[in-house]
Amino acid sequence: MSALGDRGPLLIVGGGIAGAYLAALLGSRGQQVMVFDSRRDPRADDGVGGRSINLAIAERGLAALRRIGLVETVESLAVVMHGRVVHDADRSGVSGMQPYGNLPDEVLWSVDRTAFTCALLDAAEATGNVQTYFRQRCRDIDFDLGLATFADGAQQDLWHQVPFGTVFGADGVASIVRAEVLAVNGGSVRREMLSHRYIEIEIPATTSGGFQIAANGLHIWPRNEFMLIGLPNPTGDFTATLFLEAKGPAPSFEAISAPAEISAFFEEYFPSVVELVPDIVEQYLDAPLGRLGTIRTTGWSYEDRAVLVGDSAHGIVPFHGQGMNLALESASALVDAIESHDDDLAPAFCAFEADRRDDADAIADMAIQNYVEMRDKVNDPDYLLKRQLALRLSDELPAFFRPRYNLVMFSSMPYADAFARGDAQDALLAELVAGCASLDNVDMGTAHERVRALGPLVTRPG
Amino acid sequence: MSALGDRGPLLIVGGGIAGAYLAALLGSRGQQVMVFDSRRDPRADDGVGGRSINLAIAERGLAALRRIGLVETVESLAVVMHGRVVHDADRSGVSGMQPYGNLPDEVLWSVDRTAFTCALLDAAEATGNVQTYFRQRCRDIDFDLGLATFADGAQQDLWHQVPFGTVFGADGVASIVRAEVLAVNGGSVRREMLSHRYIEIEIPATTSGGFQIAANGLHIWPRNEFMLIGLPNPTGDFTATLFLEAKGPAPSFEAISAPAEISAFFEEYFPSVVELVPDIVEQYLDAPLGRLGTIRTTGWSYEDRAVLVGDSAHGIVPFHGQGMNLALESASALVDAIESHDDDLAPAFCAFEADRRDDADAIADMAIQNYVEMRDKVNDPDYLLKRQLALRLSDELPAFFRPRYNLVMFSSMPYADAFARGDAQDALLAELVAGCASLDNVDMGTAHERVRALGPLVTRPG
Repeated sequence: MSALGDRGPLLIVGGGIAGAYLAALLGSRGQQVMVFDSRRDPRADDGVGGRSINLAIAERGLAALRRIGLVETVESLAVVMHGRVVHDADRSGVSGMQPYGNLPDEVLWSVDRTAFTCALLDAAEATGNVQTYFRQRCRDIDFDLGLATFADGAQQDLWHQVPFGTVFGADGVASIVRAEVLAVNGGSVRREMLSHRYIEIEIPATTSGGFQIAANGLHIWPRNEFMLIGLPNPTGDFTATLFLEAKGPAPSFEAISAPAEISAFFEEYFPSVVELVPDIVEQYLDAPLGRLGTIRTTGWSYEDRAVLVGDSAHGIVPFHGQGMNLALESASALVDAIESHDDDLAPAFCAFEADRRDDADAIADMAIQNYVEMRDKVNDPDYLLKRQLALRLSDELPAFFRPRYNLVMFSSMPYADAFARGDAQDALLAELVAGCASLDNVDMGTAHERVRALGPLVTRPG
Repeated sequence: MSALGDRGPLLIVGGGIAGAYLAALLGSRGQQVMVFDSRRDPRADDGVGGRSINLAIAERGLAALRRIGLVETVESLAVVMHGRVVHDADRSGVSGMQPYGNLPDEVLWSVDRTAFTCALLDAAEATGNVQTYFRQRCRDIDFDLGLATFADGAQQDLWHQVPFGTVFGADGVASIVRAEVLAVNGGSVRREMLSHRYIEIEIPATTSGGFQIAANGLHIWPRNEFMLIGLPNPTGDFTATLFLEAKGPAPSFEAISAPAEISAFFEEYFPSVVELVPDIVEQYLDAPLGRLGTIRTTGWSYEDRAVLVGDSAHGIVPFHGQGMNLALESASALVDAIESHDDDLAPAFCAFEADRRDDADAIADMAIQNYVEMRDKVNDPDYLLKRQLALRLSDELPAFFRPRYNLVMFSSMPYADAFARGDAQDALLAELVAGCASLDNVDMGTAHERVRALGPLVTRPG
């Protein structure tokens, strides 16, 4: 049995959100940790600049941040979102705010990825136990000798070899640590790509730095087969993302490439956005096309020598806003597993994967489903009626009913449990609203009885 | 059927030896090619500096270079090696040169990897059809849209997306293109690591720029379980490599770590090298430990969209000096396959893999076997007797007998055929020398008869 750190230095490869958070958490437990990242230090003057990319922090992320006392700091960097603002296709059509829930904590926090990463790195270093090294690209993990090799980004010919006892692979979807781990443990990696792609578009602030559209909401322009969303930044601008079929007849990224086609596309489907973004054609032309994929892996660890966290273990599409929340919750669960196994790492790592893989698979599936919901259903009358009923039942029977979306976003119920519960609730809602034109036609007595029969919810909001 | 280039731009990911050579060959056929590499341009002032790493160019490499008219250029950068110089364990013990063969072309060319790469890049650009882009790290290959994404090394936030019709993955052992190809074609990758590691040590030139030891040989200090080799540079220095067990009791890299241990190790086993390298202890301490592994893959291509060449398809250990020769021969064979399929790429790529995979596997196995031969057998009396007989038979019956080493190094016989022929010849040699103290005791009449019975060699020196 080898305890955490006994076998040699702890190395985290990847100083993004998962790696920096894990470093902060381990550092706060008194563990000495080294973090290596291939990029420049995002806090340095020559670090990442330019476009901001937003993340929505929900309960699982907040729960993880509570463990390192960072909730207030992060909330101070963020813009709170109380619900969805849905924009119809005509120029003036805004349906108003659809609140996420009726509990005070049922809100999301829109935060810039870089600012958030910087806060996590600061927190990690503030423990006094974490050393960070940037521009160090991992090339090789040698488990036999316990040596990790890094190529120095500043000096091409310089290689560093760092002894380690245990390495944490937080190096993202193209993880080198994962490749090394799978080469020795016989695990697998599978990738499923969507046929849709995305580009990001900045909706600028007003000249006085204010918001052009409602600040405290997640804006959605659903168009059935495609959609645009926008998340607020504290600086008054919004980061918008257009999700659209990659290929085939218009509208698709392939079919919309000439300036006149781009202009016509936005005028037809997003006229209100054209008013907000004067240079929308230029932004479209300049934006790199992003891919949307799910990564599922098996074999997250190798003995007591290595374990994967974050996107290197599980990558999901962004439509549930849960990728970062999943990563933080997983890193937190990893430390729980280590603690509950008294720092005996090999069984702790196995238990961590056994515990988390079903949950990662469940949120991966729910994230794909949520794309259809966001782009196609948020304006659908049946969907809205079921949603009205769901919120009412949630209000009247909070111990028995909560929309799946809210279980995912605003509770810490395991994702796999939320998935199963959501299926049961959805089937029941469909049955209860069948033939009803409005909530007045729903038999609430029967509804209560049937909902209670589902049994009480096990996890309540954190 | 889609011809080369018809479907869209040709993109080579990786501008190392395989990628630069392929670019030069395709460019010389009139194809427009773009080459992207993650490193700095090695020809630029801020490119690779420092240590030189040597490669031994043999017939397969020369044959490939002939196709682009680069043999003379490369030979002018190289030092010719006529044979092995074997050093015994005592201070003065040098067994003299063991020539590689008795034909004038049976020599190897020691060339610096960087200088060679620069020559290939120059040749590629000189075709007028090749554009090179450096510091562009491939992040993603999107086959649906035909877009490759590169992160700009000079400007972290900048991403380029490059349309392509067909992509050639020459991006080495940690190939991104391979990961993308295997994700869509269901292929496999398997890695086998040796328990030995290596470090490089520079044997300096004399103060007047001359060679301290015989210039035109490949020097070997065989010590059974480990060895040191040295290849000459035109600048009078040698690049030496120490191969040694990684772990366990001394001698191993793990057990030899303190300056006194290092000094004692070299004094005991390599006293003649200590005299040549005054700072050998410092060099040992500073050198990164390299790993030795074989990579075997299946699924080298995806439709007419992608194909792997070089280390991304097949990585071998360095003990036969064939890694680069294999890569060049494969790239050349790839272009042959394209030509013989009239530019119909999908079947050409399949035929290329079908043709080359057995050969790649054969040289992978022979390279591992050659380690045992180099470190353990070059001083063995039985080995030397068999080798004497082999050279004599090769001299007397050149159409029927040639040592396997020479078939690999100095002919273009397919590796798999050389492997099989070598097995048959070796069994015969062992039988013929059994009980013989010297060549005088061997029945040469029987030997000739038995050798003729093996049938004529199909491939003669190129």
